[in-house]
Amino acid sequence: MRTYLDCVPCFVRQAIDSARRVTDSPAVHEQLLRETLTVAATMRFDQPPPVMGQLIHRRIRELTALPDPYRAAKQQANAFALQMYPDLAARTAKAEDPFALAVMLAIAGNVVDLGVKSHLTAEEVSGSIGEALQAVPDRAGIDDLRGAVGSAGSILYLADNAGEIVFDRLLIERLPTEKVTLVVKGAPVINDATREDAEAAGLTELVEVIDNGTDIPGTVLEACSDAFRERFDAADLIISKGQGNYETLSDCHREGLFFLLKAKCSMIARDLGCEVGRLVIRRGG
Amino acid sequence: MRTYLDCVPCFVRQAIDSARRVTDSPAVHEQLLRETLTVAATMRFDQPPPVMGQLIHRRIRELTALPDPYRAAKQQANAFALQMYPDLAARTAKAEDPFALAVMLAIAGNVVDLGVKSHLTAEEVSGSIGEALQAVPDRAGIDDLRGAVGSAGSILYLADNAGEIVFDRLLIERLPTEKVTLVVKGAPVINDATREDAEAAGLTELVEVIDNGTDIPGTVLEACSDAFRERFDAADLIISKGQGNYETLSDCHREGLFFLLKAKCSMIARDLGCEVGRLVIRRGG
Repeated sequence: MRTYLDCVPCFVRQAIDSARRVTDSPAVHEQLLRETLTVAATMRFDQPPPVMGQLIHRRIRELTALPDPYRAAKQQANAFALQMYPDLAARTAKAEDPFALAVMLAIAGNVVDLGVKSHLTAEEVSGSIGEALQAVPDRAGIDDLRGAVGSAGSILYLADNAGEIVFDRLLIERLPTEKVTLVVKGAPVINDATREDAEAAGLTELVEVIDNGTDIPGTVLEACSDAFRERFDAADLIISKGQGNYETLSDCHREGLFFLLKAKCSMIARDLGCEVGRLVIRRGG
Repeated sequence: MRTYLDCVPCFVRQAIDSARRVTDSPAVHEQLLRETLTVAATMRFDQPPPVMGQLIHRRIRELTALPDPYRAAKQQANAFALQMYPDLAARTAKAEDPFALAVMLAIAGNVVDLGVKSHLTAEEVSGSIGEALQAVPDRAGIDDLRGAVGSAGSILYLADNAGEIVFDRLLIERLPTEKVTLVVKGAPVINDATREDAEAAGLTELVEVIDNGTDIPGTVLEACSDAFRERFDAADLIISKGQGNYETLSDCHREGLFFLLKAKCSMIARDLGCEVGRLVIRRGG
């Protein structure tokens, strides 16, 4: 997905919000804002929005000298999601269609995105999960994914955020785990999941976990490690979670690519042709 | 009022919205966005937000070669408000406290601000007026203003926007019109009222009308004409309408200055210490 002009005011707001979240220094807030404006003034609109996200958040880490400013937020999101996990796992096991419910819960977990919304409350997370429990699932999309899972020899699951990754576990447990490799980010960026979060979610004990070698809040293939790209090319099925992965892979033409995300902003919703807030299963390629 | 960091994403959004409103050329949309980002990157935060508004809208006029891109929108807003005027004038005349109702309606008319909200519907205007008819007025503020009107030998009324100026007429008719001078902008900027709008509202027949000599969507005294500044300094009472005039005059320390506005954005509301959407009467100085 290209960057729309309307993404730019959002980048600027994100830069201010993120700077405030990680430091109390007004000088750093102003400097980061000015640098974001300078970079945005000459940015390329044919690149996906996470490329700008990478630049902003790298600079936040440099200016604050904090290698992982969202670490506490990520740990908190994991802990909160883990509190919800036992009940949701039990509900999923008892559901008429456990796979369908697990898909919906994993998508609803995509609400835990501190790039789109800097201040997310526990109520918003519970609300999104509660909504998924009530929502009418996209049966065709779920059956399409179910079929692809059934015939795949290897599955790559591209994780999105910390906290969200616990809800992903509900779905990963419904996949043939011996065929699944979970992909996290290679280094901290916003609240994107890294290996530490996969461990916290108990996923390292369940499936192979690798990283993509980057600190981009999405999956820009050219920037990823060779090791990841080989796995990406070889996988029969790729389950891509969240907005950042959709934004960076929506123009990737390959078989067996599924996007699972909550459409949280109007530009994504427009690109997908759906309403804001929808739980989306979309076949790519 | 200084420019807050949070005003910057709003400038950027305004630049995009305004560019789209006045031209269908994607190249102009992108160019204006890039220029706005470049200017914002080195802007001064100790200046009020309308200084940036002036720069953005000057550039829109240059890039589109349209000297008054909001002209049709202004005419439409005047026509719509004039349709509502007879009923509102009759209600005001019959009200228990005609002056109080006129003040509230004039403030509610401040909703017609295409800087803050690029796409304003007729329903939003009717809604704001309907709200004012039901609202509990700020009695203390109204009585303070009533007292100041009673003792003033000369009154300067700083108009804000087209359309809104028709609602201002309801209040101006309740003032000693021989003592009133209405001030409009010296040249078109956004939908700010110029002499043409004062004429459309029938105000040129009712009071003296002058302009402030600028194309700033507010009142930056240093940039105004000498003629206007003399009148500003000499007036016993100044009624300043709208956000732009508040933003540029809130730090002006002089007697007999009243701000009448609807607090339409969170930064203004924060500066005023009120909720967004409130109809505000505030003594300045």
